[in-house]
Amino acid sequence: MLETAELGHAISKRDFELAEPALREALVQAQYELLARRRKAVVVLLSGVSAGGRGETAKQLAAWMDPRHLRVQAFGSRTPEELAHPLPWRYWQALPPRGHVAVFMNGWYAEAMQARVSGKIDDRGLDAVLHNVREHERMLAHEDVLLLKFWIHLSKQAQLQRLAELGRDKHSTWRVTDGDWNRARRYAKSHPLWEHTLRESSTGEAPWYVVEGSDWRYRDLTVGNILLDSLKRANRPAAAARRNAPALAAAAPAPAAIDNVKLIRDLDLGQALDEAAYERALTRQQGRLAQLTRRKRFDRRSLVLVFEGIDAAGKGGAIRRVAGALDPRQYEVVPVASPTDEERAHPYLWRFWRRVPRLGGITIFDRSWYGRVLVERVEGFCSESDWLRAYGEINAFEADLVSAGAVVCKFWLQISKAEQLARFRAREKVAFKRFKITEDDWRNRRRWPHYERAVADMVERSSTELAPWTLVEAEDKRFARVKVLRTIADRLEAALDG
Amino acid sequence: MLETAELGHAISKRDFELAEPALREALVQAQYELLARRRKAVVVLLSGVSAGGRGETAKQLAAWMDPRHLRVQAFGSRTPEELAHPLPWRYWQALPPRGHVAVFMNGWYAEAMQARVSGKIDDRGLDAVLHNVREHERMLAHEDVLLLKFWIHLSKQAQLQRLAELGRDKHSTWRVTDGDWNRARRYAKSHPLWEHTLRESSTGEAPWYVVEGSDWRYRDLTVGNILLDSLKRANRPAAAARRNAPALAAAAPAPAAIDNVKLIRDLDLGQALDEAAYERALTRQQGRLAQLTRRKRFDRRSLVLVFEGIDAAGKGGAIRRVAGALDPRQYEVVPVASPTDEERAHPYLWRFWRRVPRLGGITIFDRSWYGRVLVERVEGFCSESDWLRAYGEINAFEADLVSAGAVVCKFWLQISKAEQLARFRAREKVAFKRFKITEDDWRNRRRWPHYERAVADMVERSSTELAPWTLVEAEDKRFARVKVLRTIADRLEAALDG
Repeated sequence: MLETAELGHAISKRDFELAEPALREALVQAQYELLARRRKAVVVLLSGVSAGGRGETAKQLAAWMDPRHLRVQAFGSRTPEELAHPLPWRYWQALPPRGHVAVFMNGWYAEAMQARVSGKIDDRGLDAVLHNVREHERMLAHEDVLLLKFWIHLSKQAQLQRLAELGRDKHSTWRVTDGDWNRARRYAKSHPLWEHTLRESSTGEAPWYVVEGSDWRYRDLTVGNILLDSLKRANRPAAAARRNAPALAAAAPAPAAIDNVKLIRDLDLGQALDEAAYERALTRQQGRLAQLTRRKRFDRRSLVLVFEGIDAAGKGGAIRRVAGALDPRQYEVVPVASPTDEERAHPYLWRFWRRVPRLGGITIFDRSWYGRVLVERVEGFCSESDWLRAYGEINAFEADLVSAGAVVCKFWLQISKAEQLARFRAREKVAFKRFKITEDDWRNRRRWPHYERAVADMVERSSTELAPWTLVEAEDKRFARVKVLRTIADRLEAALDG
Repeated sequence: MLETAELGHAISKRDFELAEPALREALVQAQYELLARRRKAVVVLLSGVSAGGRGETAKQLAAWMDPRHLRVQAFGSRTPEELAHPLPWRYWQALPPRGHVAVFMNGWYAEAMQARVSGKIDDRGLDAVLHNVREHERMLAHEDVLLLKFWIHLSKQAQLQRLAELGRDKHSTWRVTDGDWNRARRYAKSHPLWEHTLRESSTGEAPWYVVEGSDWRYRDLTVGNILLDSLKRANRPAAAARRNAPALAAAAPAPAAIDNVKLIRDLDLGQALDEAAYERALTRQQGRLAQLTRRKRFDRRSLVLVFEGIDAAGKGGAIRRVAGALDPRQYEVVPVASPTDEERAHPYLWRFWRRVPRLGGITIFDRSWYGRVLVERVEGFCSESDWLRAYGEINAFEADLVSAGAVVCKFWLQISKAEQLARFRAREKVAFKRFKITEDDWRNRRRWPHYERAVADMVERSSTELAPWTLVEAEDKRFARVKVLRTIADRLEAALDG
């Protein structure tokens, strides 16, 4: 892929001056239209060889376009805060909302290649990283983020020449570091790594554009023209119409058979604890959890708890018993309701990425990203292809959390239809619980079979070894709470002792 | 203030058990009502002596209330990210939106007292800090944040006893550190500091509640009851009605005379630069700015640029010329439009606090917090007392930025009414500028005299030595851009060389 970018492409000063004003005007116009229509977010990823001129291209784009709606983001060595979070966290933090353009310097590629060069990962490790990258980028594409990846390239000769030039000029000599010269010495050795990385991460959704960097006019004009084309495409109505696209081949439709619903229906809801047994078990499990989360080793782990369940299944009560065992400075409870405007302008996982715990922290999600395959599926808030692909995206998300040291526990609390009715009625009678019952709850109740089906599919498709679902028989609140606490303590203990 | 909390207040187990269930139910009910009505945000600040039981009280509150809508926030040693921002930044980051409750452990008090104890500041320095604290807390009160400050106290005897007890118990011995014992040894010496701090920061808006901590039942019940009363008050409609309150005595009304408008009207809008002079000056000033922001010393400074001006005065063009001199990875442009729902649920300064630059960074605000005393004043979006007090709040905010190393430059771009009309007409003709002209612009134009008055008051009241306004004659765009660039370069140079 790189050879054609080592030929010495150039554009004359005259040709550049002829082309630039029109390009510039068109870019600004397309940018304003992007902002007005808000169909897509645009991320321009600028990577490439040392001294290829990524920084200058970023500066050129910022100068051509309206800098008020364009953000250039450098990703250097990780800060302590970034190191305490899963790897993709910092990229999610920087993700622009629909309507905006962001330039990501190097993005996730420099880090991956650097890990390979330093020997931190081997060839298979790199391929695993690139596999994850492809999945992430595919998800971004489906979630209205247009990703443009540019590799600014130089031939070995051109790179040496450029470094020498920069070093001679007193205004730019500070820009040439020993690292640059070291990287230049490794040019021939690095070449196959670049080729491999680009080839493995060039996909239909997010291909690489390899641009030769030796002539700045050619380089910037080429990047600018590709960006312009892409902005125009992003502004077309068709770009948003994909919501009605047929289901993706990647996510085969759920089997039409009803048999996986059995899993939910067969739960033994008769299990119960009497008051005395409950108090004993509660104290014991809360004590275990309290001690485990205070262990020194927990500093290098985190805990992500997900509570899902039929309305009135007792999520709040269970969360309270868990929270009661924890140091309140250590945890955060995130109640998940309809997304805000800001959240809606980002991929659906964005608002959860913002709240993932740092090392030593605990986040309790009261409802979660599974809304995508539950309420959004049942209510038709997203298309079938959207929720079908969500299973894979969610599994990838949770795998990222686990890789960063998180223990992920997911609970589905199940009660019978009769018990739900009894609890609704009871809530209506108690003044301070009346807030908890709304018209939505009654409506959801009428869709019981639809939810049952969605839950069965969810459990089947997202119960992974890394992040299994725990089905909780919640007809008896005491039994449910103890089961939740014991599960968390068991999983955490295994992780800390493992 | 502290003596009455050294008497050994206690509540019997029986009395506690009688009172607790009702308190608990009432707290949850008041919490749900807070969430439903969203009239106030509530911050419970828990401070006090070592081993007084702040942490246990926080845990008790989290257990009594619904943890899904209550966040406990510890403020320990500052992280690198916090150190790179102005002191109040981390508290603003943690501020709950209206409807929510947050518990702030120690808040800003432990830090202030610690600085005094370590000798980092002297008595006058402490008083200056406490003055700022009072102003901040007053602002929070006006901005619908109900702040409850609890000082959990112990007598010297009780503290020693409590530390010994904690040390003996194997479950709590880890909680007693050398720091605790050191602090206990300094009890008598610290007592006057506590007294002074509490007295100086007890105000009508945010009084201190001193609660004796030796008996946990008394302590938690007392805090719980005060919180309950406050939540009930926060839920009353009257709590929001203060928007119609008369102007505060603190902010005297602006003088009715028209003479300060002269300042704006007398600007010499005839100043202009020809193309050649412009190109020379632009290149020179951009070069200066580029070099200054790349100097090593800039790592310990930051730059906050504020652009305000009549519509079509050329803010965007000026920002572009400034941005053009900067490394795009170093700056962020923040275009300020109507606040989002999330922003509206916080004090008006909150959304700007979120975007203040870290050390070494540059934030360019395209419109700003001055909207409070411009558009919000003129359009009646806030009451007179709101915008009158805003001058002082804004000056305090900017002083915080400057204390943390920021250079704050504020530009008012002024054009004549005739020139504005000409630019509106021109914009309507150019396709890609048509986005920039809306019905709002025409409406604002009709209110010209009102804006003129508001601008004159703004400049008069918020042009401080730390953060002066620069009035820019913008009838000639070239002249304006060069003046803006030169001002920034001059101010930054003075700061870096100073």
